[in-house]
Amino acid sequence: MFDRFLPKEYNFFGLLEKQAAFSAEAAKLFKDAVATGSITEEVLKQIQEVEHQGDEVTHEILEQLDKSFITPIDREDIHALAKELDDITDMMCTISSRMRIYKISGVDKYLVKFSFVIEESINGVLCTIRGLRDLKNVKTILRSCVEVNRLENVGDRMRDEALTELFENEKDPIKIIKWKEIYQEAETVLDICEDVTNIVESILVKNA
Amino acid sequence: MFDRFLPKEYNFFGLLEKQAAFSAEAAKLFKDAVATGSITEEVLKQIQEVEHQGDEVTHEILEQLDKSFITPIDREDIHALAKELDDITDMMCTISSRMRIYKISGVDKYLVKFSFVIEESINGVLCTIRGLRDLKNVKTILRSCVEVNRLENVGDRMRDEALTELFENEKDPIKIIKWKEIYQEAETVLDICEDVTNIVESILVKNA
Amino acid sequence: MFDRFLPKEYNFFGLLEKQAAFSAEAAKLFKDAVATGSITEEVLKQIQEVEHQGDEVTHEILEQLDKSFITPIDREDIHALAKELDDITDMMCTISSRMRIYKISGVDKYLVKFSFVIEESINGVLCTIRGLRDLKNVKTILRSCVEVNRLENVGDRMRDEALTELFENEKDPIKIIKWKEIYQEAETVLDICEDVTNIVESILVKNA
Repeated sequence: MFDRFLPKEYNFFGLLEKQAAFSAEAAKLFKDAVATGSITEEVLKQIQEVEHQGDEVTHEILEQLDKSFITPIDREDIHALAKELDDITDMMCTISSRMRIYKISGVDKYLVKFSFVIEESINGVLCTIRGLRDLKNVKTILRSCVEVNRLENVGDRMRDEALTELFENEKDPIKIIKWKEIYQEAETVLDICEDVTNIVESILVKNA
Repeated sequence: MFDRFLPKEYNFFGLLEKQAAFSAEAAKLFKDAVATGSITEEVLKQIQEVEHQGDEVTHEILEQLDKSFITPIDREDIHALAKELDDITDMMCTISSRMRIYKISGVDKYLVKFSFVIEESINGVLCTIRGLRDLKNVKTILRSCVEVNRLENVGDRMRDEALTELFENEKDPIKIIKWKEIYQEAETVLDICEDVTNIVESILVKNA
Repeated sequence: MFDRFLPKEYNFFGLLEKQAAFSAEAAKLFKDAVATGSITEEVLKQIQEVEHQGDEVTHEILEQLDKSFITPIDREDIHALAKELDDITDMMCTISSRMRIYKISGVDKYLVKFSFVIEESINGVLCTIRGLRDLKNVKTILRSCVEVNRLENVGDRMRDEALTELFENEKDPIKIIKWKEIYQEAETVLDICEDVTNIVESILVKNA
């Protein structure tokens, strides 16, 4: 019990960075696969493996958090960051799995664009997480936050465009069901990235 | 740093009221458009503008919250209220945008009913938020909470009726995809309104 | 006001157990109905009645929580558990209602399997909640947590298999819309069960 009150120095920043790095790795694998027009069984396995490793880091963070009495930044912010970073990699995994279930093949221009924007956004997230460790680089962190926000707006417009074209041109309702879901999930990744940077901005304000 | 400890009197109640008023404005625009059978580009822009203004108020609240050490009601309640009120206007915006993407036209009796119930519910929400400032009018606040809860149940039944009729009579799967989503999103607005009043009720109990 | 500071002994554990028992009851009704191939109006009413009773317990917990200054375990954990347990029963109710709206009839092997796994998982949840009262049986609680986690993975694979078969064999897009939703909602029940046990595990760590 008393252990909880000792300010053990758990490496929360390092663990959050690890999580964000796994998200970035999943995004890279996804982008490369989407450019070829399909998610192979092998790529899906790789993305699932990355997701699995990210999952373990998430559990480590949450457990350390429960064991720590003192945390370098607000406890609930670490908790929220760990959850959101986990959600990013999860969602990359979900889209990839769904693409295989739906036997999607063929390069789709919107999904290619999404895969680039997702990778950029997750790299922005990684920058903001790296910045947390040393809150002196506030300007650099904020620049990444603004960028991630911008990319979320880009994603919103891309999803609307993609859906507009889908409902205008596609006559096969089953294909509409599949692509509507994939575009929406792709956009959701960008939403979660923005959630991360909102938490980071909140940490900056509280520590200003 | 020391600034954070000064009980600066941020006007949280005024800002939350502003948010709720923007939600009400979006609901009014939506109701008027739905009665004509379509969301024009102009109406969509107006709703998006309202959503954008609401968004700025949300950010202001969250930032003030991070800067405040003392808050008039529990910090996490203000945070939750700001998020939920933001979600209401966001969802009004999403439905309107989706209706344009889906090229919905023609007056739909269920959507017309939903638009009335949504406006009523958001007005109820606005009442409860206005009441927060002076917790002496507990009875009036509670009456609005009960009403918003009632309207959520009305919405549940309406969505079920609308979906039943849709799946019974509509043979075009693409139309089913579109309307199923719109009815569900309309009902979601009422869910979020109920979430707001649940938080308000919790504030009342804690301050009883 | 002063009342809030008195450590009144509200029976949070008993109330949480009640909620979990209602979830288990809904799961049992659901499983029995799914085995016959349809949800009758009568069964739906029974499940809705259980959901309604669970709802009242949820409100009681949340209200007691607002009135209590001291709680036997972290306030936010009780709050989160009450919400998640409520969500389980809600989701059982939603699936059942949706099956009637969609006029689903005929035994579906995947849904039958899901109904068994859901019942098992909710029984696991009930065990972990019962264990909270006396945190000495940590091993027994943890065993149930591991089991609920395992069942969530089983559910993930089942949903993927069910969707794969659905999109391979079903040519009627309207049936795809219906079943896709039902399978996903069934899997969501297992996700929420896992959320409950994650909270329970966190309580164990904090009280170790």
